[in-house]
Amino acid sequence: MPNLTLITYDWVPPPPRGYVRDLRVRWALEEAGLPYRVASTPFDDRGPAHLAHQPFGQVPWLTDGDISIFESGAILLHLGGLSDRLLPSDPRGRAEATEWVFGALNSVEMASLPWTMSKFMKHPSDTAAWKFVDDFLKLRLMRLEPVLAAREWLAGTFSVADILMADVLRVADGFDGLADSPACRAYVARATGRPAFAKAHADQMAHFAAADKARGM
Amino acid sequence: MPNLTLITYDWVPPPPRGYVRDLRVRWALEEAGLPYRVASTPFDDRGPAHLAHQPFGQVPWLTDGDISIFESGAILLHLGGLSDRLLPSDPRGRAEATEWVFGALNSVEMASLPWTMSKFMKHPSDTAAWKFVDDFLKLRLMRLEPVLAAREWLAGTFSVADILMADVLRVADGFDGLADSPACRAYVARATGRPAFAKAHADQMAHFAAADKARGM
Repeated sequence: MPNLTLITYDWVPPPPRGYVRDLRVRWALEEAGLPYRVASTPFDDRGPAHLAHQPFGQVPWLTDGDISIFESGAILLHLGGLSDRLLPSDPRGRAEATEWVFGALNSVEMASLPWTMSKFMKHPSDTAAWKFVDDFLKLRLMRLEPVLAAREWLAGTFSVADILMADVLRVADGFDGLADSPACRAYVARATGRPAFAKAHADQMAHFAAADKARGM
Repeated sequence: MPNLTLITYDWVPPPPRGYVRDLRVRWALEEAGLPYRVASTPFDDRGPAHLAHQPFGQVPWLTDGDISIFESGAILLHLGGLSDRLLPSDPRGRAEATEWVFGALNSVEMASLPWTMSKFMKHPSDTAAWKFVDDFLKLRLMRLEPVLAAREWLAGTFSVADILMADVLRVADGFDGLADSPACRAYVARATGRPAFAKAHADQMAHFAAADKARGM
């Protein structure tokens, strides 16, 4: 049996709650039915002990026995090797899920993260910089829309690729970025309607709410 | 033996030459000494035949027999499964290389691509949008610098993670983005000084130069 521990922050301020990336890992673990523990690292002090596991000073990381892995994409591929509920075991299905793992992160999130950060920080929208950011996301969604209109899940059956793509898209959706992409919106609703997402989301919210209490907030 | 074909554009205008992402795949194939063919897809017409292999209308993709894979990260992990010159075969080394594959693409390129595109398009630098983009890259480089100062290659031995990280960093380096990151600059020089990079780069330049001739340019 794998010996899995997910490490996330001990606390975060309210805005990112429900979106901290440990959610991707919780979601995958719940889908697979794999047993795991959750441990915390200080949000306020990202010292050498943190950087030894996650050199960019972020979360999450996962330990599997004496192996420690950072980057949600790498963690989900590792978990995919432990359960065919997360990654098809045949070579063709595995390649298809893997390409969409990168598609979610390096093609779609590459465009959606600057877009959602610009929205969150209320950058002016009459600039060349905003037009580039907005056009970039629109181009990706234009290509993704027919893909998601034609299939239920990216690699045929549900996989870690869907966890990543849905988690990326729901952030843009929260800023109304999917208004012209009905198939993308339906896909986000389909994915986040799964019981494992609900459990992962509730567990993350409870984790940070408990941290408020510990801080006397 | 694997039956590998790398597909790239038949032609691109001069500015991206030397940076088209088929270079990452050529580099990996040359490092591994794997035999491969190169085929072309029209740059000017990205129709259904292209989108069936690469749904975002980009390049490269790789075919391995009847398996077709897009996203340079997914392609390099696939090639890593064919050669331990590209990916360590022990679980711990494999996990370490894989997390740095995602680190290169989803942590560093996520920050460097908006930065280099803003530089390339000469967006004004007195805006909140530019400050966000510039601070984002600086934060990532600040964390990466001690990592690369302390080791020759990301996963101990050279791996696909280094191909991706070096290819990401050299674009920022071209716009003087590594001026305050001497270990990052030394790492780019170390990686791009490898014979397999030189071969991959020369082959890409020759491929597009031949296309100019075919077009009578």
